[in-house]
Amino acid sequence: MLLKFQFLHFSTAFSPKFHKISAPVIRITKFRSQMGSSSYTTSSASSSKLLFRQLFEKDSSTYTYLLADTSHPDKPALLVDPVDKTVDRDLSLVKELGLKLLYAINTHVHADHVTGTGLIKSKAPGVKSIISKASNAKADLFVEPGDKICFGDLFLEVRSTPGHTLGCVTYVTGDGHNQPQPRMAFTGDALLIRGCGRTDFQGGSSEQLYKSVHSQIFTLPKDTFVYPAHDYKGFSVSTVGEEMLYNPRLTKDKEAFKNIMANLNLSYPKMIDVAVPANMFCGLQDVESKAS
Amino acid sequence: MLLKFQFLHFSTAFSPKFHKISAPVIRITKFRSQMGSSSYTTSSASSSKLLFRQLFEKDSSTYTYLLADTSHPDKPALLVDPVDKTVDRDLSLVKELGLKLLYAINTHVHADHVTGTGLIKSKAPGVKSIISKASNAKADLFVEPGDKICFGDLFLEVRSTPGHTLGCVTYVTGDGHNQPQPRMAFTGDALLIRGCGRTDFQGGSSEQLYKSVHSQIFTLPKDTFVYPAHDYKGFSVSTVGEEMLYNPRLTKDKEAFKNIMANLNLSYPKMIDVAVPANMFCGLQDVESKAS
Repeated sequence: MLLKFQFLHFSTAFSPKFHKISAPVIRITKFRSQMGSSSYTTSSASSSKLLFRQLFEKDSSTYTYLLADTSHPDKPALLVDPVDKTVDRDLSLVKELGLKLLYAINTHVHADHVTGTGLIKSKAPGVKSIISKASNAKADLFVEPGDKICFGDLFLEVRSTPGHTLGCVTYVTGDGHNQPQPRMAFTGDALLIRGCGRTDFQGGSSEQLYKSVHSQIFTLPKDTFVYPAHDYKGFSVSTVGEEMLYNPRLTKDKEAFKNIMANLNLSYPKMIDVAVPANMFCGLQDVESKAS
Repeated sequence: MLLKFQFLHFSTAFSPKFHKISAPVIRITKFRSQMGSSSYTTSSASSSKLLFRQLFEKDSSTYTYLLADTSHPDKPALLVDPVDKTVDRDLSLVKELGLKLLYAINTHVHADHVTGTGLIKSKAPGVKSIISKASNAKADLFVEPGDKICFGDLFLEVRSTPGHTLGCVTYVTGDGHNQPQPRMAFTGDALLIRGCGRTDFQGGSSEQLYKSVHSQIFTLPKDTFVYPAHDYKGFSVSTVGEEMLYNPRLTKDKEAFKNIMANLNLSYPKMIDVAVPANMFCGLQDVESKAS
């Protein structure tokens, strides 16, 4: 399941020992069987050492997220959905904050902008790119549902949320001790604030998207923060509870939702013919030479 | 100092009783003499009931901030720097979240967009507009340095930070028990992320701005979050500590700063002739008829 993996540690179960690790380690561990465990209750007050920054790329209205564990001596960090145009901004911030960037991660193969993961790797050697195995894209590491991406004592859990594309995943902060409370879900284009991603290309399926959101996101605690890959109206965050009440599409029943998605009449994405081929290769595919 | 003030309570000193108030009350109280009091130490874990949303208006790159005390039965709320174009979005969110909007507040008389405070008042009767007395603009309520704007058990402290305009203020969350930790500073155009507002119109003064930032913002705890009125590069937040280290203008000495500000060679703000006259009257001044 894992390729070219540095600092990789396996464990067969999610145990309390996990939090004692102090090295800049990523472990990707199946833990589906522990998902409902009541042994990981959250303390009432958040004691997270999470450093969190939401960054915006205006042309494509894309959000990039920077997360780091500042309690760890190395301040290990990751970027979710970086954009090629804003890589220098993001790396400059990482440097100023004294973080050690471990991973540049995509929620899916984007069609509206070129990912920054390839550029980041070229400018910050040692950083590993991550995408879902189901995306069929190239990256250093591939994740599957139930995997965990660790940075210091914090981690993101991988949830499969296809429907916008075949390989979409949602990354959710952990529910264990010392993890951020409330939890935070980086939903990509699966769930947007009062909306959702289109389902008419890249293996999209409105039926699948409906199932993904209801089974993988709306089952999270209602106070879980929803951080999408885009917003076009100036919202920065929502919650699972808010979207369960007010999302104009996903509050409908499945057939009504499918009907809405089948009648959006959206124009062809202007960047798709450049972005998708490039994003299959961390944003670095030479599209022009391939087209000739 | 205060005009047309509803639910106004005065007290002559900032006392622990303050936090027992449960009615949707605003009190504006001088408390400069208590600013350095050691009797208001913060508990190690944040127990704030703050609901906080950062909202963005793309054309003018303006941030609007929604804050509410969700521990209070009425969920009293306020908006900082609303924009006319996004008033419907903001009021819809207020309604969906079940908040009672008390105040629409400006950090200063903006030159780059029309404030939404007047529109909000017309659409949500009962909401009061607030601006600094030093701005010389019209509003329902005027604040001065040291005043507090209360919503439920939470409050914003008013700090005078002129220099971008004569009447600029920074609103800072409290440092008392049960207030948000780290503190949050809504700096308007006085301090931007890795920048600052221009000082060449509206009574601006680079000397004054330098003094304002250093005496009123850089004296806050270093982990205080900096939430500016604008960002043009996609940053959403910074901290006092970060700006003290990395702000390319305000880390310089005063003379170097004044020299930088005198040589920005910025173009005339395209909205200023519409925005400033309108914003002197909550954004509702009929500029065309006044010009005739």
